[in-house]
Amino acid sequence: MKLQPVKPGAAPALGDEVADVTQEAGDAEVRKHIAKIGERMDELQTALYAEGKQALLIVLQARDGAGKDSTIRRVFGRLNPVGCMVTSFKVPTALELRHDFLWRVHQAVPPKGTIGVFNRSHYEDVLVVRVHQLVPEKVWRARYDQINAFEHLLTQNGVTILKFFLHISKDEQKERLRERLDDPAKQWKFNAADLGERDKWDEYTHAYTDVLRLTSTPEAPWYVVPADKKLPRDAMIAEVVVEALERMDPRFPGPPEGLEEFRRLLS
Amino acid sequence: MKLQPVKPGAAPALGDEVADVTQEAGDAEVRKHIAKIGERMDELQTALYAEGKQALLIVLQARDGAGKDSTIRRVFGRLNPVGCMVTSFKVPTALELRHDFLWRVHQAVPPKGTIGVFNRSHYEDVLVVRVHQLVPEKVWRARYDQINAFEHLLTQNGVTILKFFLHISKDEQKERLRERLDDPAKQWKFNAADLGERDKWDEYTHAYTDVLRLTSTPEAPWYVVPADKKLPRDAMIAEVVVEALERMDPRFPGPPEGLEEFRRLLS
Repeated sequence: MKLQPVKPGAAPALGDEVADVTQEAGDAEVRKHIAKIGERMDELQTALYAEGKQALLIVLQARDGAGKDSTIRRVFGRLNPVGCMVTSFKVPTALELRHDFLWRVHQAVPPKGTIGVFNRSHYEDVLVVRVHQLVPEKVWRARYDQINAFEHLLTQNGVTILKFFLHISKDEQKERLRERLDDPAKQWKFNAADLGERDKWDEYTHAYTDVLRLTSTPEAPWYVVPADKKLPRDAMIAEVVVEALERMDPRFPGPPEGLEEFRRLLS
Repeated sequence: MKLQPVKPGAAPALGDEVADVTQEAGDAEVRKHIAKIGERMDELQTALYAEGKQALLIVLQARDGAGKDSTIRRVFGRLNPVGCMVTSFKVPTALELRHDFLWRVHQAVPPKGTIGVFNRSHYEDVLVVRVHQLVPEKVWRARYDQINAFEHLLTQNGVTILKFFLHISKDEQKERLRERLDDPAKQWKFNAADLGERDKWDEYTHAYTDVLRLTSTPEAPWYVVPADKKLPRDAMIAEVVVEALERMDPRFPGPPEGLEEFRRLLS
């Protein structure tokens, strides 16, 4: 399945039934496919870094257990870490709360030549903040426009933006949270607060629907990724990223001025 | 060959002859060996991240063309990017120059649970700065002690430090700079200023010798890595890193309090 961007103004269905896809080939074959896309991604990243004129920003949002961390590891772990930076946005610090909600986000925007991955993002300020009523409605309602203006600023200044919502079903989340409890190597990921968030499933669905409806733009599109199955999830995201990099079409700079003279000096 | 830390106060020979080692096995075998160490590194990084109590800081210094970028890609590119951040220190900005030389470095120290790689570092302030006399001798002479005190602060606060000097011979550097000129995918890496640095080969050798002599400590040791051959270089560095992580012995936190209650809630 090939992911399509959410049409501006559209409110895609976010029911359990769209969290799953049919995996089109065996695991080994899908893994090989992902590895092949990964190689191309790597080539394109090298050119992007060499060119130094554009950046790529990838935003990952999801409910707990939907696989943000594992996506980062499996898709973006293939890139050269010199040119790829992951920023994980946690509960804002006291200092961050004394600034507007985009202040800390702006600082983490990837510089030219690099790829930046946001593990959660400014969208939490219209998700958890909205669901838990951490600010008055008037304040979070105004944020959709503020976000669009901010992302417009970035795209006008050489940053390509891709936003992924990893969408899992309520049953799959239960499965994964239980896995965390049962596996000593995963227990550290379990957070009692996740159960409270799970109780607010529908409120989050509603908040995500508004995010998609109000902030998917042609220049900074959202993709809803069916994420109940991990391999197709990785493949679909990797494909969108590589296609975006192909469109960005980064080029190696030409030879340095004075090439022949340098050759002579090094002969 | 197993790398040994530079003994505090010792001034190891940095001639061309120690830039090369005999590769002890065929390329395929060494690659397999590196991949195996890489897997172990990955496991240990996961535990380090889960534990969240210690950090690992890796400092890479070298002459141009010695392979800092390629080491990062080939050794640290195996890690989960969520818990690994590379910081490349360039010529200081106007703002950075208005602060002490450790100011920008301190900000890039890896937080607990993560691995940080410095691509160049505060050591440039006693290398390029010394060779080009960018500050009076009195100023850079005082920096060795300042650096030791700074690194002592870090190690006392949960940061393990490993410092690698990738050592290449003058001929190998010539070879690699020529390669950059000849390969359209590498020309962007060529910097005319590198030729001027090459002319100051002996001055840099002298400055590096002082760095090793004055700042290799039991808590923040330097390793001189023979770097004329790439595969042995990667293997030697990966081995030191994994051994350090083994000594740090990160542990997964135990099960969350209330485990049985959470299991019940998710049944």
